[in-house]
Amino acid sequence: MSDAALSARALQNLLGEWRAGARGAVYLALAERVRLLVLDGRVSVDTRLPAERELAERLGVSRTTVTAAYRHLREQGFVRSIRGSGSVARIPGAPAVLPVPPAPTHLDLSKAAPPALPWLADVAREAVDDLPAHLGDSGFDPIGLPVLRQAIADRYAARGLPTSPEQIMVTIGAQHAIALVSRVLVGRGDRAVIEAPTYPHAYEALQLAGARLVAVPVAPHEEADVANRVDDVDALERALARTNPSTAYLMPDFQNPTGRSLDADARRRLLDVAARQGTVVIADETTAELDIDRNHSPLPLAAYGPAGTAVLVGSLGKTVWGGVRIGWIRAEPALIRRLLAARLPGDLGTPILEQLMATRLIGRMDEILELRRAELRAGRDRVESLVAEQFPDWHVPHVDGGIAVWIGLGAPVSSQLALAARAQGLLIAAGPRFGIDGAFERFLRLPICQPVAETEAAVHALRRAWESMPGLAPAEAGLLPAVV
Amino acid sequence: MSDAALSARALQNLLGEWRAGARGAVYLALAERVRLLVLDGRVSVDTRLPAERELAERLGVSRTTVTAAYRHLREQGFVRSIRGSGSVARIPGAPAVLPVPPAPTHLDLSKAAPPALPWLADVAREAVDDLPAHLGDSGFDPIGLPVLRQAIADRYAARGLPTSPEQIMVTIGAQHAIALVSRVLVGRGDRAVIEAPTYPHAYEALQLAGARLVAVPVAPHEEADVANRVDDVDALERALARTNPSTAYLMPDFQNPTGRSLDADARRRLLDVAARQGTVVIADETTAELDIDRNHSPLPLAAYGPAGTAVLVGSLGKTVWGGVRIGWIRAEPALIRRLLAARLPGDLGTPILEQLMATRLIGRMDEILELRRAELRAGRDRVESLVAEQFPDWHVPHVDGGIAVWIGLGAPVSSQLALAARAQGLLIAAGPRFGIDGAFERFLRLPICQPVAETEAAVHALRRAWESMPGLAPAEAGLLPAVV
Repeated sequence: MSDAALSARALQNLLGEWRAGARGAVYLALAERVRLLVLDGRVSVDTRLPAERELAERLGVSRTTVTAAYRHLREQGFVRSIRGSGSVARIPGAPAVLPVPPAPTHLDLSKAAPPALPWLADVAREAVDDLPAHLGDSGFDPIGLPVLRQAIADRYAARGLPTSPEQIMVTIGAQHAIALVSRVLVGRGDRAVIEAPTYPHAYEALQLAGARLVAVPVAPHEEADVANRVDDVDALERALARTNPSTAYLMPDFQNPTGRSLDADARRRLLDVAARQGTVVIADETTAELDIDRNHSPLPLAAYGPAGTAVLVGSLGKTVWGGVRIGWIRAEPALIRRLLAARLPGDLGTPILEQLMATRLIGRMDEILELRRAELRAGRDRVESLVAEQFPDWHVPHVDGGIAVWIGLGAPVSSQLALAARAQGLLIAAGPRFGIDGAFERFLRLPICQPVAETEAAVHALRRAWESMPGLAPAEAGLLPAVV
Repeated sequence: MSDAALSARALQNLLGEWRAGARGAVYLALAERVRLLVLDGRVSVDTRLPAERELAERLGVSRTTVTAAYRHLREQGFVRSIRGSGSVARIPGAPAVLPVPPAPTHLDLSKAAPPALPWLADVAREAVDDLPAHLGDSGFDPIGLPVLRQAIADRYAARGLPTSPEQIMVTIGAQHAIALVSRVLVGRGDRAVIEAPTYPHAYEALQLAGARLVAVPVAPHEEADVANRVDDVDALERALARTNPSTAYLMPDFQNPTGRSLDADARRRLLDVAARQGTVVIADETTAELDIDRNHSPLPLAAYGPAGTAVLVGSLGKTVWGGVRIGWIRAEPALIRRLLAARLPGDLGTPILEQLMATRLIGRMDEILELRRAELRAGRDRVESLVAEQFPDWHVPHVDGGIAVWIGLGAPVSSQLALAARAQGLLIAAGPRFGIDGAFERFLRLPICQPVAETEAAVHALRRAWESMPGLAPAEAGLLPAVV
């Protein structure tokens, strides 16, 4: 297979409203937007860009404009011309790692992930003491250690969903779980319903498995009431009935990036229609226990419908640390067996020491959550007050849990802002990272799970970035047409 | 997608020479062979078996025979009848885990994998001391810690192949590496050359990526000279020229299961033709350093051809332990960047503590290899002498490294023997596990990497199993036609 090529149409989709907010030459606006797409990984390095003529036609600009944009990118080191292959995306200095790792002076808020638990090394040390009992085995463990499967099942039971270890498979993080479930449940060409915006690697996993995506908006207005997702459920119900998908991927609690949750009634309605339709709902509950101040936590999604309608995915990535790669799948035992058979071509199992660590951590989950909730409360409150102070025109929806807020910027300038922030040493995920086809330029995800000092540094960097943006005054930008 | 269904043709392929060596009723021979296929995972639980009439036609037996076989399987608990779905494979007692974990009294030689290094827990404890320096990061690491990539690059350099860290991606074991490389290099419908026999999960990964397999025999005669693979290279060259595959997967050193190696000249010839053809060779060097007494170790495969022709895969699974899930890919930096972009839909990275452990282990690889080579020498010598004593008619090719020997049984009875061995408490991989379409019934893989006491117990269990096999006298069985 040759390197990937990007059609003019695909690039146009990724570009979104690239001319919005730009005041200088058109070619510069185009070049800048392509540069951001390459920098944040939406256009992979070594991807062939469309021919100049085709792109000019598709965008409705002159050929000269595209030529000038490509030349500018070439001069900056973001495009390389290859004989016979046209123009190919690259990153200056050809670093081996993408996305570019933050320099020591950089602040990386492109991931909404907390630093590790302060006492993680102590737990790791205890887990090493558990290791010798396993060293006589082959070590290949594609299903999970019995002691860990039991601990995960017990945790579901404690949360109100009776579960047996036979319903659990241990995976190498939640993403691995989502990819595996997608591979088993999605047939090539099947439809899969996703929320929009959503966590991008999840829908990439569904696409990899051959799914055609059906995106259902869950945040139609930036002023929407975050606590209540009844409208979303109406839209999800309609999408399920209309498109008959084999799967639907969603986050019932503290949706990433919006922070919204489904109440008990919405859960029941959703699984009702899924069961009637034969759709399996893949519920990513990685952040489900990260309550800050919800009055009433619903049960895990599978509690609200017939067996087999919801497959649950969980992980330690957002409670313990992203560097501990333990996730899991809760499903009916027959599906667990199919997942096991499907797993071996992809990997031969989960590391043993990692599993022993996870077993001890899950046993202390209440203590972990108490700590995390306090941190998240502080993070959320600080983000709300700081943004109100620095960006009075931005809208920060009040969330009652989760790891991020989905800020309404009042103008479709998110990519431009992310690019300007990078120049200020701040990496941040622009709104379109969470949509398909370049949507969500009016939104920015800001994590609330960082140490408060980082949050403060980030908002101040955003302020400097905002001021550096050419030709953009918030009041003016607000007059631009909405994206959604 | 519904549960998998098996066509009559596919089951016939899996059954191979199912009537060979059987003396009792035909239906019993058929039922026994299906039972083995289910037990060793070649037919997954919940797979729908072909309709009786179709299978009878395909196998050229009476409908009554198939009906009786299915009834027998049903009575034994290996088939369940489901209204509207026909006959579905299952395992009695519906255990959640497949393959069935060995009971405490069982001996599992179905995996050729050594127990852990005796001092692994000490290294793990040291690695925990390295952990705090990383706990402030997000922990998501899809490319590998710089210190580990450097250690892996240094090891290649020490083995005679200059390598920079930018050429290395750390993976979650070798299988994960093979799957990832396959996903990036194989387009749907591309041809991929594999050796036959070979390590089965590797070709499953290629198939998952959409490859059509081209199997090239590497062990045509059970008397073949193991040390010399010149004939194989002729066959590989012809297959490359004839089928123009995008990739070829092979194990240049101590091929699994045959134990054969390619000499320097064969490596050069292979990469020459691959480079001319535009084929990328995926070289699995997981066991490459497990020399016992080779006069002269060749360099890693990539040293013998132009840059980019060979992608190398390595891991700690067979030197350190299968429970430490660290593997890696060595490729050109441009391909590493493509692999990184392709990885995220499948998983978000390799665990940090595991990587810290691996870094320390690779630094001590010479010491580890000295230990393993002594163990393998003892294992190989004991297997050779014990098999000669207990099974004078079997052929054990002399290997000079690796983890197993590929024993010629003199008769196509490997599946039958594996089934009989199971009744003696021994799990062992029958020859057909390493082929496609039921080939290699005349061969059995016996690991040489187990503790000697386990090897002895295994050979004695094989002896009891052999004697328990109905109607089989080796001299008679030897008259049956060869499978090749």
